[in-house]
Amino acid sequence: MSDALDFPDSDQRFLEPHLPPQNGEVNNDSNLPFATVTFAMSLDASLAISPGVRTVLSGPQSKAMTHYLRSRHDAILIGVGTALADDPGLNCRIKGVGGYGSDGLQGQPRPIIIDPTARWELTQDAKILKLVKEGRGRAPYIITGKQSPPVKQKQILEEHGGKYITMDIITTENGAHRFDWTVLLETLKKEGLNSVMIEGGAVIINSLLGHSSQTLIDSVIITIAPTWLGRGGVVVSPERRYDGGGNSIPVSRLSDVKWYPFGEDVVLCGKIKQ
Amino acid sequence: MSDALDFPDSDQRFLEPHLPPQNGEVNNDSNLPFATVTFAMSLDASLAISPGVRTVLSGPQSKAMTHYLRSRHDAILIGVGTALADDPGLNCRIKGVGGYGSDGLQGQPRPIIIDPTARWELTQDAKILKLVKEGRGRAPYIITGKQSPPVKQKQILEEHGGKYITMDIITTENGAHRFDWTVLLETLKKEGLNSVMIEGGAVIINSLLGHSSQTLIDSVIITIAPTWLGRGGVVVSPERRYDGGGNSIPVSRLSDVKWYPFGEDVVLCGKIKQ
Repeated sequence: MSDALDFPDSDQRFLEPHLPPQNGEVNNDSNLPFATVTFAMSLDASLAISPGVRTVLSGPQSKAMTHYLRSRHDAILIGVGTALADDPGLNCRIKGVGGYGSDGLQGQPRPIIIDPTARWELTQDAKILKLVKEGRGRAPYIITGKQSPPVKQKQILEEHGGKYITMDIITTENGAHRFDWTVLLETLKKEGLNSVMIEGGAVIINSLLGHSSQTLIDSVIITIAPTWLGRGGVVVSPERRYDGGGNSIPVSRLSDVKWYPFGEDVVLCGKIKQ
Repeated sequence: MSDALDFPDSDQRFLEPHLPPQNGEVNNDSNLPFATVTFAMSLDASLAISPGVRTVLSGPQSKAMTHYLRSRHDAILIGVGTALADDPGLNCRIKGVGGYGSDGLQGQPRPIIIDPTARWELTQDAKILKLVKEGRGRAPYIITGKQSPPVKQKQILEEHGGKYITMDIITTENGAHRFDWTVLLETLKKEGLNSVMIEGGAVIINSLLGHSSQTLIDSVIITIAPTWLGRGGVVVSPERRYDGGGNSIPVSRLSDVKWYPFGEDVVLCGKIKQ
């Protein structure tokens, strides 16, 4: 395939300790999938220069890495904001996976879209569905809080092998309405998805990195590009955390940290400190 | 000296290409000193968890590195906010420099405090002056916009070998009042200071990293610690930049980039792309 990507063995090796177990080994003692958070950011911690703008931060190697990571997870998860902004393909283009050098859909992750109010108006023309028709990707599961998702979208989704999954929306301590991360990840596991790669956007990542949910994360893989986008970008920075006396304390610190220089960028791998 | 710091040769080596020339070699073709910007930040680009709070981000190695860098510059520059918050020593404690294993003040940088309205009420008890009395540091030069700085402070400063330097305050394109970075750095060069390390805080760094002054920077050395401090920290992110059509564009990108894993942290060295 002309747009297949190559990610060399030598680079795969450094990532291996930070990835879900290979060869179908599954941790059946846990109700949770292996969860990897991964994104690329600038030195000023921005994913994008402005909301809804796709900003290329890192080099071509980094793109191949993202696709390699996708091949190593059963599911990839994004927020609806990213789906609306990018019309993303959400498949895996690494040479040798299903649709890119082999038959079937081996290595193609299940796209999961977090869409509490079912506002993604999926049409037959969506890139993600085109790839499904071409045998180069899987149809998405859309997680929504709507008891009755839009009929037309539901039909289109199901025709392609996707579906809506309805979940309760909870109200957090600080009054935000969202899904409970534990329940959400347990739901994915029940769907047979043993590993999930959380890709963005900032709302999703900041929420999951928050103090109450960060222990659900097994692995963090961040690419940092040596650029400043400037104030007002789409920033990854979780909500503040306070100690008993009302003083701000760091939200989290990674453990088992490794830094891998990668072209002009660096890749940071770690676990969330318990 | 009990509080002297050791910075091993092996670590010095990686920094060498990013430092001012050694052995008194000076670029006399330029009216400007060699300018290094250096700071330590979190993954969410914060220097500190809250304004005025000193936040330990990185390990002991990183502290020794800062002091080694100080030994390699004629001057170290901070904003008055940092001086007020920290009562900093602003000397160099690397083993072997003046006051830490040798006589005189060899290797001790000149502290430069940017204090436009002369609000730093320097007293005899300031840590920086105690170190001067003990022969372990130099007295500061305070850059101010006041034509007549406070008489008492002036006297204390001069008793210790420091002084006020009065400079014009300009109004920038966007209405901010500050010193002109070019004039400021030229002034330091005229004082015989051939290299200057700009340490902080965020106001100073964001200003110098801005599009109009960033080309004055010769070297950038940033330590990144694998921690998130959370929203509302003291963030390094320069003011936005726009293209002719009013679209946001990245403020700057480093060139000649090197990433050095350093304990749990990473040290990023680079130049500002021209």
